[in-house]
Amino acid sequence: MPTTTRALSVPSAGAPFEAVDLERRDLRDDDVRIDVAFAGICHSDIHTVRDEWGAAHYPIVTGHEIAGTVSAVGDGVTKYKVGDRVGVGCLVDSCTECENCKNGQEMFCSNGSVGTYNSQNYDGEWAAGGYSQQIVVTERMVLRIPDGIELDEAAPLLCAGITTYSPLRRWGAGPGKKVAVVGVGGLGHMAVKLAAAMGAEVSTLSRSSAKADDAKALGSSNHIATSDDDAMKAAKGSFDLIINTVSADLDMETYVRLLRPNGALVNVGLPPNKLSVNPGALIGGNKVLTGSNIGGIGETQEMLDFCAEHGLGATIETLDASDTTTIDAAYDEVVAGKVRYRYVIDTSTIPA
Amino acid sequence: MPTTTRALSVPSAGAPFEAVDLERRDLRDDDVRIDVAFAGICHSDIHTVRDEWGAAHYPIVTGHEIAGTVSAVGDGVTKYKVGDRVGVGCLVDSCTECENCKNGQEMFCSNGSVGTYNSQNYDGEWAAGGYSQQIVVTERMVLRIPDGIELDEAAPLLCAGITTYSPLRRWGAGPGKKVAVVGVGGLGHMAVKLAAAMGAEVSTLSRSSAKADDAKALGSSNHIATSDDDAMKAAKGSFDLIINTVSADLDMETYVRLLRPNGALVNVGLPPNKLSVNPGALIGGNKVLTGSNIGGIGETQEMLDFCAEHGLGATIETLDASDTTTIDAAYDEVVAGKVRYRYVIDTSTIPA
Repeated sequence: MPTTTRALSVPSAGAPFEAVDLERRDLRDDDVRIDVAFAGICHSDIHTVRDEWGAAHYPIVTGHEIAGTVSAVGDGVTKYKVGDRVGVGCLVDSCTECENCKNGQEMFCSNGSVGTYNSQNYDGEWAAGGYSQQIVVTERMVLRIPDGIELDEAAPLLCAGITTYSPLRRWGAGPGKKVAVVGVGGLGHMAVKLAAAMGAEVSTLSRSSAKADDAKALGSSNHIATSDDDAMKAAKGSFDLIINTVSADLDMETYVRLLRPNGALVNVGLPPNKLSVNPGALIGGNKVLTGSNIGGIGETQEMLDFCAEHGLGATIETLDASDTTTIDAAYDEVVAGKVRYRYVIDTSTIPA
Repeated sequence: MPTTTRALSVPSAGAPFEAVDLERRDLRDDDVRIDVAFAGICHSDIHTVRDEWGAAHYPIVTGHEIAGTVSAVGDGVTKYKVGDRVGVGCLVDSCTECENCKNGQEMFCSNGSVGTYNSQNYDGEWAAGGYSQQIVVTERMVLRIPDGIELDEAAPLLCAGITTYSPLRRWGAGPGKKVAVVGVGGLGHMAVKLAAAMGAEVSTLSRSSAKADDAKALGSSNHIATSDDDAMKAAKGSFDLIINTVSADLDMETYVRLLRPNGALVNVGLPPNKLSVNPGALIGGNKVLTGSNIGGIGETQEMLDFCAEHGLGATIETLDASDTTTIDAAYDEVVAGKVRYRYVIDTSTIPA
């Protein structure tokens, strides 16, 4: 029998949130039911709710930074038991059989992975995300949240954490490496914490110096205001790795110029227009322009374990959803760059 | 005492070649004098002679694919002796002290490496390249040409060989990997030979099928005409690595689309306009857009040793320079894509 839970839903593009009943499927053999405690607000949620990326399917329940505890398990579940502290990120299913799934990159599933919201499950049912009090997910896509990370601070790790952890690992952030993080927001603040914990020397870049003190508290040893031409000139050729978390259009060449030979500029935000760069800027230093999209389930677990080991969680502001307009207002604040650094909805406050 | 040698020189932008006397410096302690036997014609030579890249310094003697034998050595030379078979590539000096030189990437020397032509030595003297019967170079920048590679087939390895070998190595060409080479010309034909010798499964791409048979003979198992929409569609998502040797503007997205997740598109040609790509095309598969610029001295030696071990040399057409207009005509043929696959000047034929 399906169960009914309460959720925050948006009926049409850009409409305000409303608390609704949401049906969750009956447990299949491999399913875990999770009592959601906290759901982070990712900028992707906002783009989707406002239909800024197109193809949003309404009504929609967003949220793919989910932390909670297991409240029931299907008959065949072996990894989790009732009471376990768990999380769900951007994916709730993948085919398991293609090369990418087998390589642990479920997000690139050749048969189409299933997103946590605005995506159809393989049975055709529309997935509904984490702004709700319960979610049902196959155990394969559920992550264990280690003791030592509070659930509220864990929630944003499921997207902001893995999105920055994966490229830091792929591109070798660690001792002796200089890493720059462009943008100190939801993704950026995690990139700084993670890169610093990996042992890299971290710099931060944003338009002004407004977040310089915050950035240093997060683990940056050097904040550069990109409006400061002298500072930008001084930083030329100095970074092994740049993680660009800004989803507005930036001039790629400005940042490629800051790379050392063989360095990589990784885009994790999704700016509206094309990235363009002079071929000589790449060739004249074997430089890399690339992007990175979340991470696989195995790597997400590795990231959570790494965070627990290093005492890391997201820096959050918790939202009470009793008045659902709080969430609408929070969206505007995220867009305005006012959150420090991630809003997390306390789902127990969703109105009955 | 300096020595005088015969060389092919161009007095001004786009002028025809003429045979001239060229003075080579007296041997310093660390210098090697090389009797040049063969010099390859690289497209960069043409761009420079015609001043298409700007900043060409006339009169100019081009050529940075040089093979010959040692005819004299300075008092402090330890690596080479008279009679040794040697080569010189795109570099004739670097500072030796910066981080990039110490890392074996002399081409990125922070103090400015010295190119084999159109570049000033640290003493201010203009370097003159390999279209000449002798060259004097510090032993640090001289490569050993192993027995088993003929000097004429070795010459193009010093630029076309290392330019393609280096990115193939960096990006992991080898057994189980699918490598595509775009453009079957001077660089491309070496990329095919090298990637095949490394054990990769090699495909070639060019506008038409005209070079399909040649490509297969070089080691390609699959030739794709880029004008064939169906073939391009079928190749989507299939390559781990693409080496783009074309220096005309190509649509990067067309080729990024052919990459598997985590794949890399490496540009080794230098197209006139910016490379541009939709950010989602990179992010949605952790794909890499990059470039690669020749290789360091150590890696160039490694490449030559690899070629000897695998019985590889360039596929060449040898030019007699007795009538210097032959070289002018050869330049036009390179530009027209008519050479199969590298012209090599027999420098003994330079008129006295």
